[in-house]
Amino acid sequence: MNAEKIPDIIIGRLPVYLRALQRMADSGLKTTSSQELGEHVGISAAQIRKDISQFGEFGKQGTGYSIQFLLDKLRGILKVDRIWDVVLIGAGDMGHALANYQGFTNRGFRIVSIFDNDKEKVGTMIGEYKIEDADQMVEKIKTMGVKMAMLTVPAPAAQNVADKLIQAGVRAILNYAPISLNVPNNVKVQYIDPATHLQRMTYYL
Amino acid sequence: MNAEKIPDIIIGRLPVYLRALQRMADSGLKTTSSQELGEHVGISAAQIRKDISQFGEFGKQGTGYSIQFLLDKLRGILKVDRIWDVVLIGAGDMGHALANYQGFTNRGFRIVSIFDNDKEKVGTMIGEYKIEDADQMVEKIKTMGVKMAMLTVPAPAAQNVADKLIQAGVRAILNYAPISLNVPNNVKVQYIDPATHLQRMTYYL
Repeated sequence: MNAEKIPDIIIGRLPVYLRALQRMADSGLKTTSSQELGEHVGISAAQIRKDISQFGEFGKQGTGYSIQFLLDKLRGILKVDRIWDVVLIGAGDMGHALANYQGFTNRGFRIVSIFDNDKEKVGTMIGEYKIEDADQMVEKIKTMGVKMAMLTVPAPAAQNVADKLIQAGVRAILNYAPISLNVPNNVKVQYIDPATHLQRMTYYL
Repeated sequence: MNAEKIPDIIIGRLPVYLRALQRMADSGLKTTSSQELGEHVGISAAQIRKDISQFGEFGKQGTGYSIQFLLDKLRGILKVDRIWDVVLIGAGDMGHALANYQGFTNRGFRIVSIFDNDKEKVGTMIGEYKIEDADQMVEKIKTMGVKMAMLTVPAPAAQNVADKLIQAGVRAILNYAPISLNVPNNVKVQYIDPATHLQRMTYYL
């Protein structure tokens, strides 16, 4: 389980397995096979066996995988067997959608603060959250010790906000702004950009 | 340019290059290098050269790439040198965010219809769009000949809606519901699920 040796591409598939396994568990299943899991996630059974074997011997030949055992192992590997605090920057449409998203808590995350630089929005509510002033963002993040952020600000502001987040101690950014961020090597960035995902499919049409 | 022979992993990186190159062009740059592009997207220069070389000889040793030439080539390869019609299913928070998203048109896409099954929402507006009745979805998509859809319905409804979309002729689905869809081999699905992206980063924290 050496972080340096497991290819990032495999790490990227583990949350997909985790999501599918959770749904199997929710529907009352106890065991599964690489074949069945593969059909759920659109990845070959051989690839799944290979990916999972990177982390040890989880299944027995012929009897398949215990779903609960695999869930526990994957959550441990991905470190989502705990709850991570996440800050949300930007209270526009996407910020609202994320603030109201119900799928974080049971998957290892909770939003602890929402910041915006629009003084008209500061102090208003999104669901249970009161929008906070972006001017206090760095200090509050430092105080809270938050390591993760979701960034839903406009593209021209994104790099500047990202720099501040990193200065405040954030080490993982989920970026919704349609711009590639420049970050130090010790900071991870994931991008969510619908046009990029659509462009990945048109090639095949 | 044989669609069967270029690995999907490479196709997945091309929209990322396209986005970075577009931003370089917008800021007035005329040429770039694999080194510079790599710094923008967080991918090694060697990997970028290898990816791009799959599609022919685009750069000259020592002089780098013409950004406009590369943009034109990538748009052609990804088939976003035209405008694709896209339907949006689900008029919740995420549907609103996508309906108001400004980044589609200049990257090859336009939303043509928004459907929801909530009769209270049908007929109301999101920006310039009037929400249409999901009961008419299949027929309207067939009539319009739309091949792409964005799915923002709740997880329990997603597979059923996806089946209808495919029946109506849709061949590419951008799925925001936190569930893996079962689709035929001739249908492409991309997933946008913030918890999955966050889980991909916690491993490294």
